[in-house]
Parts: sequence; C-alpha cells; structure tokens
Amino acid sequence: MMQPAAIALGVPLRLLAERADASAAQVIADAQVGDYTDLEVLRAWAKGLDVVTFDHEHVPTPHLEALASDGVACRPGPAALMHAQDKAVMRRRLAELEVPCPRNRVVDSSEAVADFAAGAGGWPVVLKTARGGYDGKGVWVIHNPDEAARVFAAAPAGVALVAEERVDFARELSAVVARAPSGQIAAYPVVESTQTGGVCTEVIAPAPNLDPEMALQAQQIAITVAGELDVTGILAVELFETRDGRILVNELAMRPHNTGHWTIDGAVTGQFENHLRAVLDLPLGSPSARAPWTVMVNILGGPAPTLYDGYPHVQARDPEVRVHLYGKSVRPGRKVGHVTAYGEDLADVIQRARHASEWFEGKIGDGESHEAR
Amino acid sequence: MMQPAAIALGVPLRLLAERADASAAQVIADAQVGDYTDLEVLRAWAKGLDVVTFDHEHVPTPHLEALASDGVACRPGPAALMHAQDKAVMRRRLAELEVPCPRNRVVDSSEAVADFAAGAGGWPVVLKTARGGYDGKGVWVIHNPDEAARVFAAAPAGVALVAEERVDFARELSAVVARAPSGQIAAYPVVESTQTGGVCTEVIAPAPNLDPEMALQAQQIAITVAGELDVTGILAVELFETRDGRILVNELAMRPHNTGHWTIDGAVTGQFENHLRAVLDLPLGSPSARAPWTVMVNILGGPAPTLYDGYPHVQARDPEVRVHLYGKSVRPGRKVGHVTAYGEDLADVIQRARHASEWFEGKIGDGESHEAR
Repeated sequence: MMQPAAIALGVPLRLLAERADASAAQVIADAQVGDYTDLEVLRAWAKGLDVVTFDHEHVPTPHLEALASDGVACRPGPAALMHAQDKAVMRRRLAELEVPCPRNRVVDSSEAVADFAAGAGGWPVVLKTARGGYDGKGVWVIHNPDEAARVFAAAPAGVALVAEERVDFARELSAVVARAPSGQIAAYPVVESTQTGGVCTEVIAPAPNLDPEMALQAQQIAITVAGELDVTGILAVELFETRDGRILVNELAMRPHNTGHWTIDGAVTGQFENHLRAVLDLPLGSPSARAPWTVMVNILGGPAPTLYDGYPHVQARDPEVRVHLYGKSVRPGRKVGHVTAYGEDLADVIQRARHASEWFEGKIGDGESHEAR
Repeated sequence: MMQPAAIALGVPLRLLAERADASAAQVIADAQVGDYTDLEVLRAWAKGLDVVTFDHEHVPTPHLEALASDGVACRPGPAALMHAQDKAVMRRRLAELEVPCPRNRVVDSSEAVADFAAGAGGWPVVLKTARGGYDGKGVWVIHNPDEAARVFAAAPAGVALVAEERVDFARELSAVVARAPSGQIAAYPVVESTQTGGVCTEVIAPAPNLDPEMALQAQQIAITVAGELDVTGILAVELFETRDGRILVNELAMRPHNTGHWTIDGAVTGQFENHLRAVLDLPLGSPSARAPWTVMVNILGGPAPTLYDGYPHVQARDPEVRVHLYGKSVRPGRKVGHVTAYGEDLADVIQRARHASEWFEGKIGDGESHEAR
C-alpha cells in the first residue's frame, strides 16, 4: 500500500521482500527477495539508497546501525524502533515519560506473575512476549500461576515476558501521527478500533462520542511519544479507553498501521503518503478527514476460497465502497484486504463496510444479499 | 497512473512498454520492453492474459484483431478504437449518429480546402491529419490556399487530411464516461479544460456556470458515442462550447484522459479505477465529485531542471494540495506531472493549484513565493 503513494509522489521504491510472492513484490519493479536478518544481504540491497524504511519492526537493531554507518538513513532509526520491537523497553520508556499505561512488570517466573497479580488487582493478568508478537500472537490471558508456568515452559529461553494488568476497557482507540525529522507532526483524528481474536477488524473514524478532551489527550500522547522517541514516519499508539474514563497506552507501532488504513480513502493525505513524506523529510500533508464518518473493515480469510468472486456483488450494490485487496492467497483469519466506506450517516456507513467485507469473506452470499439492506 | 488503481483492486498488470524508462515500466513489476507494432512481440507478450487495454490508441487494428482471434479480449476493441485512431472515420460515424460536430470534410488538395472554406464560413480553417496527431501535433490553422498547399507538400503520402471549420468557441469542455461491456455507463461531471499551445493545461470540475441543460447534453453525447461505438473503458469527448450556445465534438479519446486526471483525488472513483473495472467487466464505481470544486493543473517541463526541488515549498505552503509526478525527465513543454486542489471556493482552489504547478515548473521561485498568496 506504500507503492500507490510512492507512484503519485514520483518516488522510486526498492524492495527487499521475504518471498517472491509477497504483496509488495507483486507491485514493485525494483524488488529483490532476501533475508533481512542477513546483514550482507541487507547491505548489498541498500547500497545507493537515500532512505530505508519498513513495513514491520523486526529488522535487528545492529543491522540498522550498520546501515546507518554505511551512510544509509534508516527511518525510523534503530533508537526509536527498539521501542516498537521490545515491549519491556517500551513500557520502561513510557513510564519515564509519565505516559499512562496499564500496570506492568517484566517477569521471569510464574511466582513473579503471581506476585504482580497480587499487587495489580488480582487475576487474570496479561502476559506478553517482549519481542516478536503481533496480531494477538505472543499474548496470553493468564488466570492462575499454573497457566503462567505453562507459558514460561513453552517460551524460548532468553525471551523476556511482560506481565500487565488486564484493563477493564470500554473500547480501544488509536492515535496515529506522522512525524518528520524536522519535528513536524501531523495528527490524524483519533479512531475507535475493534479487535476480534487479537486482530484488528474494524475502525471507525473519528471515534464516536469520544470526549474531545480525551481525544486531545490521546493525540497529545502520540505527539509526545513520537517526539521523545524521535520517531520518523508513522507512529500508531493503540489505547484503551477504560470504563472509569482514563486512557492507557496498549501498544506502539512505528509504521503505517491497520488502524490508519481508513486514511487512504478517508483523509486528505493517506498514512502511506505521509509516511513517505516523513521519511523523505518533506513537509507533511493534511491529516484531516474528508467525510464526517469513515469506516474501515478488514477482509479476513473466511469461507470464500477466493476473493475476486465478491467484486460483482459488492461493487454493484454500493458504487461508493472502496475495496483494497492485497494479492494474498486466502487462509483462515489472514488479513487479505480491507474495505472502506464513508458518508454522513454512521450507521449506514458501518453497515455498508461490514456488508462488503462479509461478502468478500464469503460469510454472506447470494441467498441473503438483496434483502440485507 | 493505472497501477495505483490496479494495486487497490488486487489486479495484476503486465506491461508492454516502448522504453525501459517509460513511466509505467518504473512501477510495474511484470514489464517487458517491446514494439507494439510488431505482431509477434505483441502476441508473445499477451499470451495468457485475460484482457488487454491501452494508454494510447496507436496499436494497429489488424494486430488487435489477431489478439482477439488468439482469445485475448482487447478493450476497447478494434472496431471502437478505430474512431479514436482516425479522425475521418470518427467524423463520418458521428455524422451518422447526428452528434453535433464542426463542419468538416476529408480533403486531398489545397483546392479542396479552399472549396471547403468557401462553404464553411471562410478562412481560417483547421487542417488535421486523420491519424497520429495528439497534443496539438498534426493540427494546423490555415489562412489561405498557399498555407494549405504547404501542409500537403509536407504530409507523408497516403495520409488523409480533414478540414474543419474553425469554431468560435467560448471555452472547451470535456465529458468523460466509463462504459463496461455490460453496457453500464458512469458519467463524470462535465469539466472545463484549458488548452495552451494545443496541450491541456488546466481542468476545472465541474465546468463553472455551465447551463445544466448543456451539461446534460454533453453527457448524453458521450453516453451515445460510448454505446453506439461499443466503447469499453474510459471515453473522453472533448467539446467546444460556442459563443452562440451550442456544443460541438472536437476530439474523442478511448483511454483515461488528461481531462479526467482530476478524478484521482476529486471523485469517489478515479478514472483509472473505472477504466480497469470496465475492461474487467466489473460494476462501475461512483463518478461523483467529492468536493464542490476540483482543479487540476498540469506540470509541464519549464525552467526548473528537476521537479523534486519543488516539494518542500509546495507541500509546506499547502498541506492539502495533491501532487502527481510521472517519473519523466524534464523537457520543455513535456507533461511531467499534475497537481490537484479541491475545496469550496473556486478562486482559491484555482490559485492553489496554479501556484503549485508554477512552482514545480520553476516559473516562480523563492523571491515571490511568500507574498504570492
């Protein structure tokens, strides 16, 4: 999804892809398949580039430092990126910045988890691997010391685990900002996101009925974190809105983020374009919404074996819906695309986006299509 | 510009490019350099494709018929495309359809031009090559038989010339529609276009102060032509609005067209996406405008030797302006990009788009930038 923005800007991309059939490799002419954990591969690939950026946070910090010493700017840089790579580092830094977070502690045993639980409101607690988790992977809800012990037994040696209080949240929010090396920041409207089984499935922009003070506080947190951690590019701060009226930082991501996909069709400047503008040290584009309401719903692999059969129905039914398919084969639960709808009436917009997604997934079909709306 | 739409739709493109450094070849992974006038090259390239489409109209008709007989759908098909390839064929067909056109006649000598002029309101008249002209090339304004004779003397043997009355127009309009093989048509708002030296330089959507009856008539002409000529994909009908309140067809194009570039940022569904949806026989997307006014201004090669230096100023000054650069080297007068602005106030939108274009071109620079607005 970075390529359409790059094409418009006239910025040539060179890709290092893990696999030849990766989505990005299908649409970028100057693409190479290689292992980003192999420093020599990375160095040879990066030769002559002005800037390196990422669509995930897993490139090892020493490799990024090596590229930087070769004269290739890495944006975001390794000192920022480590906070998105390691939840223990992230929690420590956010505490220093006095950014509100769930209570948390690095733990090395089931006893330590029990001790943390006792001091943090009791069971259940959440255990997370400090490194490598995503989309609900590497996260467990733990109800007793035995469950904690099983996680430790299964965890690879040397992997730190972080225990966190299980937050009684009313909903999840996300504050997405873009930050340029100059320090300029563009803050997108704060959105409501829905996670299903640990995977983001739906985003409503802006978050409905959000207290304006809380929206500002969420944006301010993202701005503070982006600035203090010297982030370049997109920073997504995923937040809990608690039932007692607080917001707490759940996760950080330093790349265009699923909770920002609505901006492609819904904002003046999409997150992928602002990411590129930021990493190129160009002035940022307006993050304003173009419609009163924009709703993005992910398309996950479902009963339909292929997505393309959904087009005739979805496009005929709703000539305004925006469809993005990622060129991925369908596997159950895999994010294979998203749809975006926008308009004046939130209930209508939600219904249109959900219907389109469910049709692509194969959850609904011809039998109920024409009555559904 | 078709690639961003193809990426969103998840549709893989295979490109046959004339040169390795062509804009499209820079951004399409599955690209081949070859000569589209060589049938064997074309056939080998097209093998296995579902649909072939075009970003110009110059592929020879017999080649397209050969592809069709190989089982590769060509959209638009050769029977439609010949009307965009040959102005004599186009004028004859439009006359049959009783579509209003400037008076015209195929001519084979300066005497025939003089005879035509005598019957069509006198000198000057316009001479056009029936085939191969574009962007003002192959078009001459002729004031007397001697000038006509010079055109005939310089024209290659066998090229038909069409004489047309020189229309006293108030302005130029363009009606862009997309048509699917099913017959479904999406009609974009009628726009005003400004030509400078035969090259489209500015488009205002919708055309300001256009009589609604005339707007409907323009759309109806485009719909009639698209249907009667069995066009698939985008059809752009360039029109004259005469000072005495008529509209006349100037040119046809059967591909995404410069007068439709405003739709990328300004319409719910851009013309490139609707072109792809049409040639894939998918339902068309809404052609509605997203803002009251959208203005597109081309960036032509000018004093600035490179375009990228324009970014910091243009983007800092106007965070809402949309920039599209085509990855082309700068040559005087060459179309190398375009900018789009939109909003509620037409004068402001025009000013913003023109300023951005002029800055990229290098016509204005630091000395006057900050006072200009």
